[in-house]
Amino acid sequence: MSKLFMFEKPIGMRDTFPHLYSLKKEIRMNIENEMMNWGYEFMETPALEYDETVGEASAILDQQLFKLLDQQGRTLVLRPDMTTPIARVAASKLLKDRNPLRLAYAANLFRAQQREGGRPAEFEQIGVELIGDSTVSADAETIALMASVLKASGLKDFTIAVGHVGFLQELFLQIVGTEERAEKLRKHLYEKNYVGYRKHVDSLPLSSIDKKRLIDVLHIQGNGGSIAKAEALLEGEGGRGALRELEELLSVLKDYGVEDYVKMDVSLVSHMSYYTGVLFEVYADHVGFVLGNGGRYDNLLKKFGAEVGATGFGIRMDYLMEALGKSVEQAQPALILFSAERRKEAAAKAAEFRENQQPVIVQDVKGVTDLDRFTAGFKEVYSFIGKAGDQA
Amino acid sequence: MSKLFMFEKPIGMRDTFPHLYSLKKEIRMNIENEMMNWGYEFMETPALEYDETVGEASAILDQQLFKLLDQQGRTLVLRPDMTTPIARVAASKLLKDRNPLRLAYAANLFRAQQREGGRPAEFEQIGVELIGDSTVSADAETIALMASVLKASGLKDFTIAVGHVGFLQELFLQIVGTEERAEKLRKHLYEKNYVGYRKHVDSLPLSSIDKKRLIDVLHIQGNGGSIAKAEALLEGEGGRGALRELEELLSVLKDYGVEDYVKMDVSLVSHMSYYTGVLFEVYADHVGFVLGNGGRYDNLLKKFGAEVGATGFGIRMDYLMEALGKSVEQAQPALILFSAERRKEAAAKAAEFRENQQPVIVQDVKGVTDLDRFTAGFKEVYSFIGKAGDQA
Repeated sequence: MSKLFMFEKPIGMRDTFPHLYSLKKEIRMNIENEMMNWGYEFMETPALEYDETVGEASAILDQQLFKLLDQQGRTLVLRPDMTTPIARVAASKLLKDRNPLRLAYAANLFRAQQREGGRPAEFEQIGVELIGDSTVSADAETIALMASVLKASGLKDFTIAVGHVGFLQELFLQIVGTEERAEKLRKHLYEKNYVGYRKHVDSLPLSSIDKKRLIDVLHIQGNGGSIAKAEALLEGEGGRGALRELEELLSVLKDYGVEDYVKMDVSLVSHMSYYTGVLFEVYADHVGFVLGNGGRYDNLLKKFGAEVGATGFGIRMDYLMEALGKSVEQAQPALILFSAERRKEAAAKAAEFRENQQPVIVQDVKGVTDLDRFTAGFKEVYSFIGKAGDQA
Repeated sequence: MSKLFMFEKPIGMRDTFPHLYSLKKEIRMNIENEMMNWGYEFMETPALEYDETVGEASAILDQQLFKLLDQQGRTLVLRPDMTTPIARVAASKLLKDRNPLRLAYAANLFRAQQREGGRPAEFEQIGVELIGDSTVSADAETIALMASVLKASGLKDFTIAVGHVGFLQELFLQIVGTEERAEKLRKHLYEKNYVGYRKHVDSLPLSSIDKKRLIDVLHIQGNGGSIAKAEALLEGEGGRGALRELEELLSVLKDYGVEDYVKMDVSLVSHMSYYTGVLFEVYADHVGFVLGNGGRYDNLLKKFGAEVGATGFGIRMDYLMEALGKSVEQAQPALILFSAERRKEAAAKAAEFRENQQPVIVQDVKGVTDLDRFTAGFKEVYSFIGKAGDQA
């Protein structure tokens, strides 16, 4: 291979070195345990799926999909999300045995990137799907579980912003009249580009009252009177059902004791086009970026022939690790150095360590080129070199 | 999507349902712990690599590689093995900090299959690489560690067959003269097609003595006098060094107390063309198929600019699970059913369970379509339905 490129990786692809690997494993284990305590069962789906099955049903932009052709000429995609594959499995198999169904996953997802130095093209997401339950209790359960797993991961200060697709959709349609114009407004909000949103609203041929309604929606946040304020922006009956759901949701979340982590935000929108009801995203207070998101997606399962609603969430492991900013105490292995004459003693000593679950490296001195440099990496060194009885 | 194909997965791709997932997780954890006790550090590499970097350096047939083009027009491959990516990382980064280097991985590998119902196209492999140590002690360490992790996984009866690339290579060259003809012999042995091997030997224009040498090599197995018998087949000096290494290896393995799991087999060959010295494969005694294999690959690191030898092994998780044939005791979650009036009581009861690490599902009765069918799936059911004080 060409020497210039021999260490290169594809755009957005990363190696995870041992230290980060251990940290990720510890966090994953804590989260998995919490999800299992809530009765969620973990499963795995293939990294490759048919484009016409999973690629097209997923909410990820086509340009972000890694695609390839199989030997029969059909298009495959590297899974860009787990919600769609799990919907496939639930509809084809698991809902027959249990409904509602609680599933969980920890899996690497793939989203192609255009340039180096940007977002990772492969990243781990851990999440749950609660399939077959259309009650507000199910929405509340996923939000309460998200709070619970984040606490279990060690994260202290975080906020789960909660909104509803149905409210904003109705408000926008009432004011701007068409789905196309509503989409333009949503796009600014999804990008959290509030300056752009205000400019755009300003440019619209609307009455000053309607412009004020579109601007006011940005300021309606919090668990106090925000639902009543949101309702005051509506005209007619549309959109009120969504607010009743948010009201009930907040009351359930109080019973779960997680209301302090939750902030109602009726202006919340998502890039995931499959959400149909309550939706939410979580950010760490001192970091500011979104660690994960979730919501209700009542139409996805129908694409797989199952007439059931569903809700769920996913957390980005890389962002969570950054927000935690902590390091893991790794058990440093001890080192046993030996020469052939005393190999057996070295092996016996190592067996002792390992029986006590203490990590130890056993190294033939002949296999080391720079002994000083090698041993400098260990705190605890045992030497079985030369004739018996010389142990250092 | 077309209804006909909506549940289909690409050829060789599988879902792992919750029960198998838990079993795999438990086995993986036991193996990981054992590897860490031997001082191996786990790491992760990307699923996608450049073909010119990792695809070409790997020992996997081109037709088995999943290939795709990135947006710059370069060819990417889904990793078909982990030894090559780890060699890349070791050479570019980690060997600078520690040499010899002990690394481990548990990763899904990808090998395209031609037809449905055959081998899986994505499977998990768990393994280690010991890089930078060319001593027989390093070969022995990987074999002893393989025995140790298999025991830790719960496997009782298994055999690690051990051979040496250098012996068979020399014997074949002495008798048939060219690498091309030697390769034909090796291919039969790799496929364990002994009938084909005998027929082929019979068809060769050789003396009856040489034919006998080629047949006799099949019968030289075991830890008794097999090395001496193998030596008797050689003419001249070539190949004797390989046998001296096997002799020393066996003596080290005795010190590790694993000689009962090991069977010398000088006719062992591998499909992995990068092996250069001691090589081995393990099979479960009552199953017969190969669960994993390993060996010395002293040339691979050189492709990445590092002049060091290396050895390692990988175990197929799917084959190991089949050999273990066991099932895992899953903690069955309890079920708490509630209606809105008593939601708070239900939440409090659930919190009790979860604080004690007991899995529990909390389900709003309104969210269940077929209550009898749903509750039938649980052994322990608590009911908070209707007015307070009615608990079943």
